[in-house]
Amino acid sequence: MMQPAHNIIPHLQTALTGPLQDIERHILDNQSRIEAWFAQQWKQTPAPFYSSVDLRNAGFKIAPVDTNLFPAGFNNLNPESMPLCIQATQSALDRYEASEKVLIIPENHTRNRAYFASLAALVDILTKAGCDVRIGSLLPDLEHPMEIPINPDKRITLHPLLRTEERVHIENFMPDLIILNNDLTEGIPDLIKGITQPITPSKQLGWWNRSKSAHFEQYHAVAEEFSQAFSLDPWLISPLHRQCGKIDFMNRTGVECLEKNVAALLEEIRKKYAEYRIDQEPFVVIKADSGTYGMGVMIAHSTDDIKTLNRKQRTRMAASKGGQHVTRVILQEGVYTFESVSAEQSVAEPVVYMLNHFVVGGFYRIHKDRGPNENLNAPGMHFEPLAFTRACIAPEPDTSPDAPPNRFYTYGVMARLALVAAAREMQEVSQ
Amino acid sequence: MMQPAHNIIPHLQTALTGPLQDIERHILDNQSRIEAWFAQQWKQTPAPFYSSVDLRNAGFKIAPVDTNLFPAGFNNLNPESMPLCIQATQSALDRYEASEKVLIIPENHTRNRAYFASLAALVDILTKAGCDVRIGSLLPDLEHPMEIPINPDKRITLHPLLRTEERVHIENFMPDLIILNNDLTEGIPDLIKGITQPITPSKQLGWWNRSKSAHFEQYHAVAEEFSQAFSLDPWLISPLHRQCGKIDFMNRTGVECLEKNVAALLEEIRKKYAEYRIDQEPFVVIKADSGTYGMGVMIAHSTDDIKTLNRKQRTRMAASKGGQHVTRVILQEGVYTFESVSAEQSVAEPVVYMLNHFVVGGFYRIHKDRGPNENLNAPGMHFEPLAFTRACIAPEPDTSPDAPPNRFYTYGVMARLALVAAAREMQEVSQ
Repeated sequence: MMQPAHNIIPHLQTALTGPLQDIERHILDNQSRIEAWFAQQWKQTPAPFYSSVDLRNAGFKIAPVDTNLFPAGFNNLNPESMPLCIQATQSALDRYEASEKVLIIPENHTRNRAYFASLAALVDILTKAGCDVRIGSLLPDLEHPMEIPINPDKRITLHPLLRTEERVHIENFMPDLIILNNDLTEGIPDLIKGITQPITPSKQLGWWNRSKSAHFEQYHAVAEEFSQAFSLDPWLISPLHRQCGKIDFMNRTGVECLEKNVAALLEEIRKKYAEYRIDQEPFVVIKADSGTYGMGVMIAHSTDDIKTLNRKQRTRMAASKGGQHVTRVILQEGVYTFESVSAEQSVAEPVVYMLNHFVVGGFYRIHKDRGPNENLNAPGMHFEPLAFTRACIAPEPDTSPDAPPNRFYTYGVMARLALVAAAREMQEVSQ
Repeated sequence: MMQPAHNIIPHLQTALTGPLQDIERHILDNQSRIEAWFAQQWKQTPAPFYSSVDLRNAGFKIAPVDTNLFPAGFNNLNPESMPLCIQATQSALDRYEASEKVLIIPENHTRNRAYFASLAALVDILTKAGCDVRIGSLLPDLEHPMEIPINPDKRITLHPLLRTEERVHIENFMPDLIILNNDLTEGIPDLIKGITQPITPSKQLGWWNRSKSAHFEQYHAVAEEFSQAFSLDPWLISPLHRQCGKIDFMNRTGVECLEKNVAALLEEIRKKYAEYRIDQEPFVVIKADSGTYGMGVMIAHSTDDIKTLNRKQRTRMAASKGGQHVTRVILQEGVYTFESVSAEQSVAEPVVYMLNHFVVGGFYRIHKDRGPNENLNAPGMHFEPLAFTRACIAPEPDTSPDAPPNRFYTYGVMARLALVAAAREMQEVSQ
């Protein structure tokens, strides 16, 4: 994990915090009942093995904007999160008959240092939780174990993944449990089809099968139920969204639908802004419906932004991780992020990590060259771990709702609402 | 919880650390396998709801000397333990069908401020974990709710415990789950006999029924299995012990048996000291076999210490909590505690807290007027919380075995070995 912890806490621009103070105050006042509400949810729909959730905090509203079920970034967690990570991992492993020998199947990256550092951190957590851990890679041309140095004292080894009958393994190591850390954007590799070992998260939750719009359908239902239980306007905790049919950005087919929906969504947002007297310009985020890594993302403030897409922008939208063609997109209400790190005035957005249904830590994604209405998941971003002592699960109700432990508790609630949505997705695919 | 955390770490006198370095090194080297070993234990015998374990660290050996299944002292935990406490409590509550409404049945203290502070801390943990919590007191003359101030901002309320048919409750509050924080030294009160609500820990684990010698029988078996699995001499992690039949200190009946066993135990210790070339005087601790609060405890360095017991000492041994007559005693190898707080040269012993099977924190019990071979659980003691960042579950194997996170990890292992023993006791009484 990242050393040392700087414990920088982004500054929330206070001019806009009115309604959020209301949300935070409300959430703090109901903390115990909210925990009981979540406990009920996990009984009905157990949480995925692990996840990370990107949040945007506009001051007047706060919402999850992306839920990753094959998270990387474990290296960015505060080292003081380790005890919580170990404990939560042990509770997640309790579900399995055997979890002494664990095999992680990672992404097929070969040069992404940050990803390998995350992988090493994940191995460390699992090892400390009591697992004997190996990494079995799907890299097609990996014939021998490959050592990857993380730092002068630490290295990880990628082993070629092998299969014998209905089980996958590496040389001399037959795992009890497979942990997927590969989002399967390009489908399920034959090697892991029909294996008898338990595999978590489900292969059905890979991006080949999962869609952001299905996730946000679930999320809206969850936000609705939560808002009803705790008397909130669900809009304050969820972004509006719309969907289009197939779009080919290169040939401009389906783009009229996009224009129409952008216009409609902007209008919806404008109405909510008027209702809450928010003096900001609405914007829409258009994202590939399946995928990650901040690729294939664009911002529209008006339909003109769609009409005037140049070739470079269209190429970027058409391409995504693994070179998949973007055919479906999700249109999401843009949520401003009005958190910034004071010293550099860089825009920051919180990313919250969960193991099983426990919030174990998080960090701020910070981008010094991006504005509050832009995607921060882009080259040039960096990370600051959340201070553990202000962990997302231990609010201090007697202090101001904006005090860090309380703001962080609200983050943890929002992230877990997205996790309930993911748990429902998981339940659907397993039926 | 205690504010602020001083994070004092007692100094371990290094002249004697040879063999313990070996134990600690060995435990660190096997950390992952040890966690897997514990995971197996919890599958076979689930852990009690909560517990605290007193350890003694002689440098050349380390061992649990008391395992409390109705712990107080939650107020002495480091406030930074809170996230771990919440998480572990939520995992413990997962076992119950319903745990939204929780009733704690406390000890019948009326003037023990420290106990009430612990009770308030326990209420706080359970509330943050999502429970609606009340305190239902067994105090016979409590007719109306009694408010007890903890500090200027905090108070707790003792409600008279009521019963309607097969359920206990307080006025206008029908709990789903009863948490016992009363060690039932004087037996099971009629009010809670035969109730249908789940009650944890089991009433059968009260001191009316439990004995230290039965616990240490179990502990020795556990230490034996652990030592076999990890190639240790079990003596390095467990105190030798013996038992006597009924003893009446006032009438001096049974005292010959005591003398005989003290002599035999001292001889056994002497042999082990010789084997490890330990240049210390053996001693024996004689304790009431059922009970707590450090009452009814005496130290013997020779049989003369038994022969020459004066009236005052005999009266102290004959009386225990609740005025019970001591009839059975346990004779335990005295384990020196060679940890001390440098500034004052006060002797310190670690106390480790667990919720479910998770180590959540601990503190040092410190006594400035007692020696390394004396009972520290006595008036004049005070407490220093363990530093959370050095929690007992996240060792740093690359640093010295004596580095605090590593010493604390060893504490956590020892405490959990005692917890396995308690889990086996629990399994026996529930059969």
